[in-house]
Amino acid sequence: MKKSEFSFIGDIATMFGSLPHRGFEPIGDDCTVLDMGRDALVMTTDMLVEDVHFLRGASSAKEIAHKSLMVNLSDVAAMGAKPIATLLSLSLPESAQGEWSEEFMQGYYEASARHGVALVGGDTTASRDRITINVVAIGRAPKENIKRRSAARIGDTIAVTGKLGASSKGLVDIMFGDMNTEAARIHRLAQARLAEGEWLGQRSEVHAMMDISDGIASDIRHIMELSDVGADIELRAIPTDYDIRYATTGGEDFELLLTVDSTSFDALAKELHAATGTTLTAIGTVTPSRELRWLEDGTPRELELKGFTHF
Amino acid sequence: MKKSEFSFIGDIATMFGSLPHRGFEPIGDDCTVLDMGRDALVMTTDMLVEDVHFLRGASSAKEIAHKSLMVNLSDVAAMGAKPIATLLSLSLPESAQGEWSEEFMQGYYEASARHGVALVGGDTTASRDRITINVVAIGRAPKENIKRRSAARIGDTIAVTGKLGASSKGLVDIMFGDMNTEAARIHRLAQARLAEGEWLGQRSEVHAMMDISDGIASDIRHIMELSDVGADIELRAIPTDYDIRYATTGGEDFELLLTVDSTSFDALAKELHAATGTTLTAIGTVTPSRELRWLEDGTPRELELKGFTHF
Repeated sequence: MKKSEFSFIGDIATMFGSLPHRGFEPIGDDCTVLDMGRDALVMTTDMLVEDVHFLRGASSAKEIAHKSLMVNLSDVAAMGAKPIATLLSLSLPESAQGEWSEEFMQGYYEASARHGVALVGGDTTASRDRITINVVAIGRAPKENIKRRSAARIGDTIAVTGKLGASSKGLVDIMFGDMNTEAARIHRLAQARLAEGEWLGQRSEVHAMMDISDGIASDIRHIMELSDVGADIELRAIPTDYDIRYATTGGEDFELLLTVDSTSFDALAKELHAATGTTLTAIGTVTPSRELRWLEDGTPRELELKGFTHF
Repeated sequence: MKKSEFSFIGDIATMFGSLPHRGFEPIGDDCTVLDMGRDALVMTTDMLVEDVHFLRGASSAKEIAHKSLMVNLSDVAAMGAKPIATLLSLSLPESAQGEWSEEFMQGYYEASARHGVALVGGDTTASRDRITINVVAIGRAPKENIKRRSAARIGDTIAVTGKLGASSKGLVDIMFGDMNTEAARIHRLAQARLAEGEWLGQRSEVHAMMDISDGIASDIRHIMELSDVGADIELRAIPTDYDIRYATTGGEDFELLLTVDSTSFDALAKELHAATGTTLTAIGTVTPSRELRWLEDGTPRELELKGFTHF
């Protein structure tokens, strides 16, 4: 659920909070969590709407399929779980019912096969003029592996996987007609950190975790709010090849944002890299202040940064 | 998944059949089934699109909320399971972002509260001009209670709950501007057979079960195909207050269609009525022929009946 829907979402969470939970944890994380005994099941859903989240002219059907799967699998990985299955709902105008839908399904199949994810249900229906895609992703993990936004501890190291900013830089490139830059390619076929999420789930020194969907400037606030802590983030430490604005407020990088016991960080980063080839970079510290402070070489700096707005 | 999408759906099922199942049963029933140990989890999804499945002018936001929940809860009940939770995705054009969405959520809350169903996740986003609603419903039951379309046995009594045809008659009434007939009221606020589905799930003499979404003329064929059997249906036995065409091919009655060990039928019907107040009516017999025959007072009758087409 995205940032600028918050008042509506907040109302919904309050309204439905009074209903029986039926074994599910309350809304607030990347996924809902259902206790299954030894394992937990996690579930998430995202809806993609033509001319809001994608343009048929700018992305191929396969790329749209890839993206619709990835946004959901990324949420599963962010819980420390392994994605196992999806449900797919599609509403298609006549103009998309032949070739487009076949290419979409081919892309969805290829991405599902690559990550070993089953398709276990869905719905297809007509629409009047635009495509809507809804994906539900289901993941599974031993209960003790599940990582929550509420688990950050004061003194933790704040860390991110990979590099930030490429996806939003790529989106800007595409908007200016530069379809074939490295960033544009990353934007179109971004890979969620599935192996990394599952691996980090197994490590007890990882406390809070979430995926970066709206940029760290926005997303770190979810961890702060739910863990009742603050954060100092060192701008020069943020791993990026692009402008700091992309790296802090750009959406859809599908990297992971986590807090780690500070004494274990170096060893963890080394082991993650050995296991998956992916870097883990320390970018800050969890503080007791409840505030987000941006630092430049350790000195606080005023910075008016807002996350990506989808709604 | 509806009838006239079959070739597309068939292709999808074949295409994805080669992927690992990850503990889920293959596509084919009202819900997918995940083995959790003692219990099974069932899941289903339906997408409702403005100007295809509903008209903002003809139904209130509350009625649309009610319907979007009911179509999904009905699929859960049809598996013999108890609905426990839903995920809701909404894409809203500007014209629906204020009052309409609040009334929708109020209706969705009231229907969820009435049936003790939690809301455990979702997504809200903008759309350009039409509303799309996607609901995922999750149910739970002891594994041995789960009813499948493939479980009909030759000699079984074919039965339906309640009465058929009111919802489609009501839709026609509404199309002619008669908004306040009894049938129109039933169409707008049809109740899925939730208590009945869960109750019937506990009875081993109930073999196959599904909900009636496209009319028995179409839906019985799913049971025939998956159970590799035929069916004789006695037209005069079908419980309805309306024309037989509504009762056989009308959609969205949300009644249950089931096959029952014939020696147990009378006692089962009596007990179901005592437990829930709902009638169970015998309308035919499962045969070895693999054909669907319509009978009138026991004599085969030619009848060209097709189910409701949504796509």
